Amino acid sequence: MNTDELVELGQQLRVDSVRASAAAGSGHPTSSMSAADLVAVLFANHLRYDMDRPDHPGNDRFILSKGHASPLLYSAYKAAGAIEDGELLTFRKLGSRLEGHPTPRRLPYVETATGSLGQGLPIGVGIALAGRRLEHTGYRVWVLCGDSELAEGSVWEAAEHAAYEGLDNLTAIVDVNRLGQRGATRHGHDLDAYARRFQAFGWHTIEVDGHDVDAVDRAYGEARSTTGQPTVVLARTLKGKGVASVQDREGLHGKPLPEADEAIAELGGLRDRTFHVHEPHTSGQPRVIPSSETELPRWDPGEKVATRDAYGHALAALGSGRGDVVALDGEVSDSTRAEFFAKEHPERFFECYIAEQQLVAAAVGLAARGWVPYASTFAAFLTRAYDFVRMASVSGACVNLVGSHAGVSIGQDGPSQMGLEDLAMMRAVYGSTVLYPCDANQTAKLVAAMAGLDGVRYLRTSRGAAPVLYGPDEEFPVGGSKVLRSGERDRLTLVAAGVTVHEALAAADTLAREGIDVRVVDLYSVKPVDRETLRRAAEETGCLVTVEDHREEGGLGDAVLDAFSDGRPVPRLVRLAVRTMPGSASPDEQLHAAGIDAASIASAVTLLVEEAVVR
Amino acid sequence: MNTDELVELGQQLRVDSVRASAAAGSGHPTSSMSAADLVAVLFANHLRYDMDRPDHPGNDRFILSKGHASPLLYSAYKAAGAIEDGELLTFRKLGSRLEGHPTPRRLPYVETATGSLGQGLPIGVGIALAGRRLEHTGYRVWVLCGDSELAEGSVWEAAEHAAYEGLDNLTAIVDVNRLGQRGATRHGHDLDAYARRFQAFGWHTIEVDGHDVDAVDRAYGEARSTTGQPTVVLARTLKGKGVASVQDREGLHGKPLPEADEAIAELGGLRDRTFHVHEPHTSGQPRVIPSSETELPRWDPGEKVATRDAYGHALAALGSGRGDVVALDGEVSDSTRAEFFAKEHPERFFECYIAEQQLVAAAVGLAARGWVPYASTFAAFLTRAYDFVRMASVSGACVNLVGSHAGVSIGQDGPSQMGLEDLAMMRAVYGSTVLYPCDANQTAKLVAAMAGLDGVRYLRTSRGAAPVLYGPDEEFPVGGSKVLRSGERDRLTLVAAGVTVHEALAAADTLAREGIDVRVVDLYSVKPVDRETLRRAAEETGCLVTVEDHREEGGLGDAVLDAFSDGRPVPRLVRLAVRTMPGSASPDEQLHAAGIDAASIASAVTLLVEEAVVR
Repeated sequence: MNTDELVELGQQLRVDSVRASAAAGSGHPTSSMSAADLVAVLFANHLRYDMDRPDHPGNDRFILSKGHASPLLYSAYKAAGAIEDGELLTFRKLGSRLEGHPTPRRLPYVETATGSLGQGLPIGVGIALAGRRLEHTGYRVWVLCGDSELAEGSVWEAAEHAAYEGLDNLTAIVDVNRLGQRGATRHGHDLDAYARRFQAFGWHTIEVDGHDVDAVDRAYGEARSTTGQPTVVLARTLKGKGVASVQDREGLHGKPLPEADEAIAELGGLRDRTFHVHEPHTSGQPRVIPSSETELPRWDPGEKVATRDAYGHALAALGSGRGDVVALDGEVSDSTRAEFFAKEHPERFFECYIAEQQLVAAAVGLAARGWVPYASTFAAFLTRAYDFVRMASVSGACVNLVGSHAGVSIGQDGPSQMGLEDLAMMRAVYGSTVLYPCDANQTAKLVAAMAGLDGVRYLRTSRGAAPVLYGPDEEFPVGGSKVLRSGERDRLTLVAAGVTVHEALAAADTLAREGIDVRVVDLYSVKPVDRETLRRAAEETGCLVTVEDHREEGGLGDAVLDAFSDGRPVPRLVRLAVRTMPGSASPDEQLHAAGIDAASIASAVTLLVEEAVVR
Repeated sequence: MNTDELVELGQQLRVDSVRASAAAGSGHPTSSMSAADLVAVLFANHLRYDMDRPDHPGNDRFILSKGHASPLLYSAYKAAGAIEDGELLTFRKLGSRLEGHPTPRRLPYVETATGSLGQGLPIGVGIALAGRRLEHTGYRVWVLCGDSELAEGSVWEAAEHAAYEGLDNLTAIVDVNRLGQRGATRHGHDLDAYARRFQAFGWHTIEVDGHDVDAVDRAYGEARSTTGQPTVVLARTLKGKGVASVQDREGLHGKPLPEADEAIAELGGLRDRTFHVHEPHTSGQPRVIPSSETELPRWDPGEKVATRDAYGHALAALGSGRGDVVALDGEVSDSTRAEFFAKEHPERFFECYIAEQQLVAAAVGLAARGWVPYASTFAAFLTRAYDFVRMASVSGACVNLVGSHAGVSIGQDGPSQMGLEDLAMMRAVYGSTVLYPCDANQTAKLVAAMAGLDGVRYLRTSRGAAPVLYGPDEEFPVGGSKVLRSGERDRLTLVAAGVTVHEALAAADTLAREGIDVRVVDLYSVKPVDRETLRRAAEETGCLVTVEDHREEGGLGDAVLDAFSDGRPVPRLVRLAVRTMPGSASPDEQLHAAGIDAASIASAVTLLVEEAVVR
């Protein structure tokens, strides 16, 4: 498109943004208007995308990191012929694909859900990594950011990662409209302030008037021809550009324009221009991923193996069987054992250093491109990325997250390193799966199984070695459990997972010698739980005692409730969990101090028997 | 101290770090040895601290952000005469104050718990803000960071905040030892790479050989005399410095030295040098905080008020009554209504822009100085700071966190903006309090009450207006609840909080007209829960139906279990919660789609009655 056409298209996107927001009675037209020219030039002259084939492997990827400017995005889709005007006006209505913030669950052109700021660029880095290191189809990744969101640390994790990897297939476009939600940003229209930061991190920077379509056009061209480093286009814009009553004014964030018709007239009225987005350079052949039978590692019962070790070996084996499996780690791969994968498959391993938000974001980006990512760090440090995990579920992203060093059983390192809230955090994520194996063979099977699930999957591993309980051919369906001790005289059921399975078994043996039979259930699938087995245990033993190396809220103890929250009779319930703030101590001392070791379990059960709480 | 003495002190700190780790059989001596000279010079010649009075208001504040180098910290305390050699050798043992990672809960010289990297600097910013804007006692804040942790985005949130505020009372010292846990960092010994970044963010930078004590001494002097901007001292060091077998070598992170005795000999053997830390410049008078009776705002029953509005008004009132109350917000104060406080008390309001990690970290830092911070943003975006919340609990920090726009009831903005995991996240935090008011007067009372609690306190507010239910003189003790409907013929109990209280009341009215009496409990205190009321409801009605605008995991439904997890008989339980991924829709449509509006509740209860689940 030439200058005049681009100007016209920008105005059309403004008009349609105003119209969509007016029809909805809410939305962010002024944030759309500032970036309208930036998007017009990108979509018309630079983006390469087959609108009929969102799955085309050569498509460029566009991420609207400032997701609240969704009216602009949908207006651009309309101009590109992908959606009708009628649908545009369903914006923000019940059942519409055009949500307040874009999500790929509903609209195939959307790469990732946005709306929590500072996520678009890190996820874009993940997609650019896929393009650069794995796919080689020549696509570019364009991320449109707001200026306010540059305050998020995750943006600088992404800036660091992208520059270090030399991602010249990545372009960030920053809509520097000076105004955040509440008022002015720290740096206003000082483009240099942002340029200095990006340059220091190793980016090529271009400063431009974001309403000068020719200058923007040249900037994108320069970004495309820049090699060896990512480019950021810093565009000076005006919020509400084009409508004098709202232009560059505070207090109008997230509000439809007060006089929509007048604004539309001021913008030159309705237009109905469409254009054809440039086709991808490359063929549309889907990529071929080599695969073969996965030969999981096998351990003999009785061997002492840490589940984190089993994770590393199983992941390496899975990587050999499946060419679509990739691994990422937050600079602790020697602890999580992701290093076993890294050694065997270095081309599919992504070191993310100590930047857990970027770690999870890169996994989300890789998953968006169809890869099967396993991202690992200490369970405790996944809390750093909770917003990204939450948003991954909004995207419907299929990511595997693996948290090691869970619980007090890590020992001397103390509470800062102990994942004690991770089960609660992960269970609360929509559509998530939460797995917590207790032995090596179980871990290996679950590592392989999780690759085939929907949504966010979480695997919790332990630091210390534990005896292998199960044979290598045992199966562990997700949503299942294992009954490890069972008899007709069971007076209650111990429900455990991970390290506490071993403690529960030892307690059961102690209690049996005292004439108290108890059932032991290994609830390795914390979400979904095995309702059938729990209900049978409830009926047959009348009392469930949950034992977990986790806070008492939101973990195993709460998870069993899922089997009884439909109004049916509920068994008696007792929770053993970590109720204090641990200090340093040995693993055994920690488990004892928390009241979740074998001796504590046996004592608790004995008390229940003595007090006739159980039959 | 002169050069020779400083060199000697550095060696002593190395020797003691090696000894402590050897005695423990674990720990991070090599990470301590790299920074030993940096700490020796700081403690001997620059830090101003009354070791007999950790609460001295003029004390400088030192934060060991690389908390794993705790042997170095404890060795420095020993040299400063604060702890004995015998205690030093209790390092990492059960019951010792000298934990694997330092915590202020045990040791009074520690300002904040560290061990999750990238937190020391943001929390240091909070303390420096207190010093600069509120206290004026002239103390400096010194933060010793590792180089690996500079990959954390939170460090750059802090860098941005500190420079913008011109915090020249803050000095970051970076121990650039080139080696992370797994191997080399991205930038190795390239000090310029870090300097460029900090300069771009507005910091004064000094590059120095971290083992040249005179150069380090000069650098700290320069930092102290730099005005108008914070300073970072970038120090080139060697991990394991001083012991050839471990110096600058990979694969030795977090391991005691293999031959401790030989290493100690190589370091020149045992020393027992002590020194007197320089006294603070200022007097030790505790600060006087003006306070008066707080006159909370009052609303009449029936008025329609959003709890977020009530929060803002109550906080402003509390700020008028209590001079120690401060407020922080993440650039959404027009939404959270923290702006009401900001307008009345601008000198005690801290705008943190869109950087939720820095937001919570600043609150932790302010709390460490005895201020009573209220930090607010959307509930959804507090997930961004979960690691900081978790670590706040390790510190025992008394912070008030307020999440607005909770639940699907926000309406059109969609899932990215909906706090749906916040109750689970906050409940799982050790020692936390979780409050969820349903009306304005209740909100005001809880805002005031939370200031007096221990640990992390969370208040959840709602976007939409709701009728005031309670009179302005009603009391709402933490750990309590309100029974809003009750009768002898109650067939079950609806347990609700926040927006669902209103839905439950409407459902109860509908059901009453159909001849079905139900009890309604307003469980505004989600943690701790009112066990007594829940148990009575269980005994008298036999079935609890929880209704919450939150995911079904970890929220209200799980919270009620706390009243029944000691082996006592458990009532029948039914959970109504958000089980789908919402899209855009109106608030009423959202509540209905999630099955938690009055009509859905009434239907669910009717079904339970028809199926004879309830009596």
